[in-house]
Amino acid sequence: MAGKKNMLYLSGTDAATFMLVPSDGDPILLVPRLEGDRARSESWVGDVREYEAGPVPLRKGEKCIFLPPVDALTNALDELGITTLRFDSLDEKTFLRLSRYCPTRSPLLEGMRMVKSTEEIAIISRACKLAGEAYLDVSSELEGNPTELEVAARIHSAMAARGATCAFEPIVAFGARSAFPHSTPGRKRLSSSSPVMVDMGARVEGYCSDITRTVVRAPGPAERTLEVVRSTLRDVVDHLEPGMPVSQADLLARRFMGRYAAFFTHRLGHGIGLDVHEPPSLCPSSQEVLRDGMVFTVEPGLYYPNRYGVRWEEDVVCWKGRFRILG
Amino acid sequence: MAGKKNMLYLSGTDAATFMLVPSDGDPILLVPRLEGDRARSESWVGDVREYEAGPVPLRKGEKCIFLPPVDALTNALDELGITTLRFDSLDEKTFLRLSRYCPTRSPLLEGMRMVKSTEEIAIISRACKLAGEAYLDVSSELEGNPTELEVAARIHSAMAARGATCAFEPIVAFGARSAFPHSTPGRKRLSSSSPVMVDMGARVEGYCSDITRTVVRAPGPAERTLEVVRSTLRDVVDHLEPGMPVSQADLLARRFMGRYAAFFTHRLGHGIGLDVHEPPSLCPSSQEVLRDGMVFTVEPGLYYPNRYGVRWEEDVVCWKGRFRILG
Repeated sequence: MAGKKNMLYLSGTDAATFMLVPSDGDPILLVPRLEGDRARSESWVGDVREYEAGPVPLRKGEKCIFLPPVDALTNALDELGITTLRFDSLDEKTFLRLSRYCPTRSPLLEGMRMVKSTEEIAIISRACKLAGEAYLDVSSELEGNPTELEVAARIHSAMAARGATCAFEPIVAFGARSAFPHSTPGRKRLSSSSPVMVDMGARVEGYCSDITRTVVRAPGPAERTLEVVRSTLRDVVDHLEPGMPVSQADLLARRFMGRYAAFFTHRLGHGIGLDVHEPPSLCPSSQEVLRDGMVFTVEPGLYYPNRYGVRWEEDVVCWKGRFRILG
Repeated sequence: MAGKKNMLYLSGTDAATFMLVPSDGDPILLVPRLEGDRARSESWVGDVREYEAGPVPLRKGEKCIFLPPVDALTNALDELGITTLRFDSLDEKTFLRLSRYCPTRSPLLEGMRMVKSTEEIAIISRACKLAGEAYLDVSSELEGNPTELEVAARIHSAMAARGATCAFEPIVAFGARSAFPHSTPGRKRLSSSSPVMVDMGARVEGYCSDITRTVVRAPGPAERTLEVVRSTLRDVVDHLEPGMPVSQADLLARRFMGRYAAFFTHRLGHGIGLDVHEPPSLCPSSQEVLRDGMVFTVEPGLYYPNRYGVRWEEDVVCWKGRFRILG
């Protein structure tokens, strides 16, 4: 396998380029030479092999395979007598290089990661609580006409003060910029009438939270839009049931929004875990079904080009047949 | 093509999933519905097509292809009568889905991006200057025993104060943690004797800088190691010449380091541009040759497991046959 977070999930480190899991025998991590010490310190896997494409001087006792990564992998495959491969994700170039091992994609890891354990839920729950606290810190300090960039930097500080990092670069959008669901923080300064959209998350022990808040700072139609978004969120969460198709949750949101639904330009949500976006995708074409252990965002939003956008996002867990907003 | 930065390079936006460039005719951007407004506001490309996997209500006058992204792409290909594809990067799944178009990988974009224009060099130069200033801000405020996380957050603030963002999550490593070249900031607090390694960069108009500084705060062997690293950097830059194989630069560094070279566990450097790591790779197996317009890091480092690591990194441009450290 080659997906960084899949390797982190199984091995405890994201330092490897490839993790080889033979159907019998112990796994092997293939890591760039510079990551060897970190991989050994972070992972439970005993067989950590370093590679470096060209020959270079080594420390006393250090071992290193002087080959490019894919050749280091095929060497290990041949040494173990492995003739067929299942993989989680590969780019086209590596896939073609491995063709003699009849590589086929396996959805195994995706399925494993989609259903969280109680330990994982506890960590994500902490990440949610922490994101909520960090948001409160930052939102109480909006005086002084900060720029979007400055508010984003304050979010980083609020996370650091709690021993965490941002799960992703925060979105901070003032005024008409909030009409882009994925705005990038810029030099725009807050004015007294701007709506403020903040989309942020904490990373705790590798796991992410992801919340969005929108503050409407002046009377106007955005107030009503915010009510629609927040009541949609509440109503959707109230109607979730184990066994319900994930696509149904998305469609429910559009139904609750009524005539506003045309301005809801994205899916209802996505799974969270080691990745900030992971399965299931709460969209109209999803084939998944809601079940115990799933943790996902619910994030209705309404966007009015050149005017404003409003989004509210919570993280929801399904556990013992019940749905609960974390944080 | 599907590489986000390649699309940004050509179209002016990173909002698209695919950019289709017919050999004759105008290009097309295929974007998720939620990114449609942003793509149109950021890009010069006139033909921006939105897709959404399932049917949903639309705004008045809004157009949307109700198909998954790869189907939206094949529809556009068939509409234009395109029968063969060259691409920059694809995952294995998309590659297989497109097999009837005989897809072959093209190195064109990689080559274009590796050689920077004067405009690009000017922007990267500003990003370098800004990173240097932000570092000075942060390094002058190491009192009060901050954690690695807190120093990293201060770097975000120093960037925001200058209207920029971090090009990547800063590495801040105290003491023995600096022995991992890619350490992640954690809750460790600074002590008076810890060496401090900071690896950071600014992003300005999409372009990155990438510098590393190591401060040795107590007498000991790390002082001498730092001298070796800094003199290696100077000596390597002094010996660079247009036409020199990139691999030679890496080998020169190891030669200048002498017996220390065994502790230099990574490549000498990498190109910078829209990506913080891009071609050329300054490693022993590189096939590239140094030439005008290349901008790359030179970052010798020496790492002593469980003790400390030292790295110094500058960004270097080759222009009119001369090599200059930016910043």
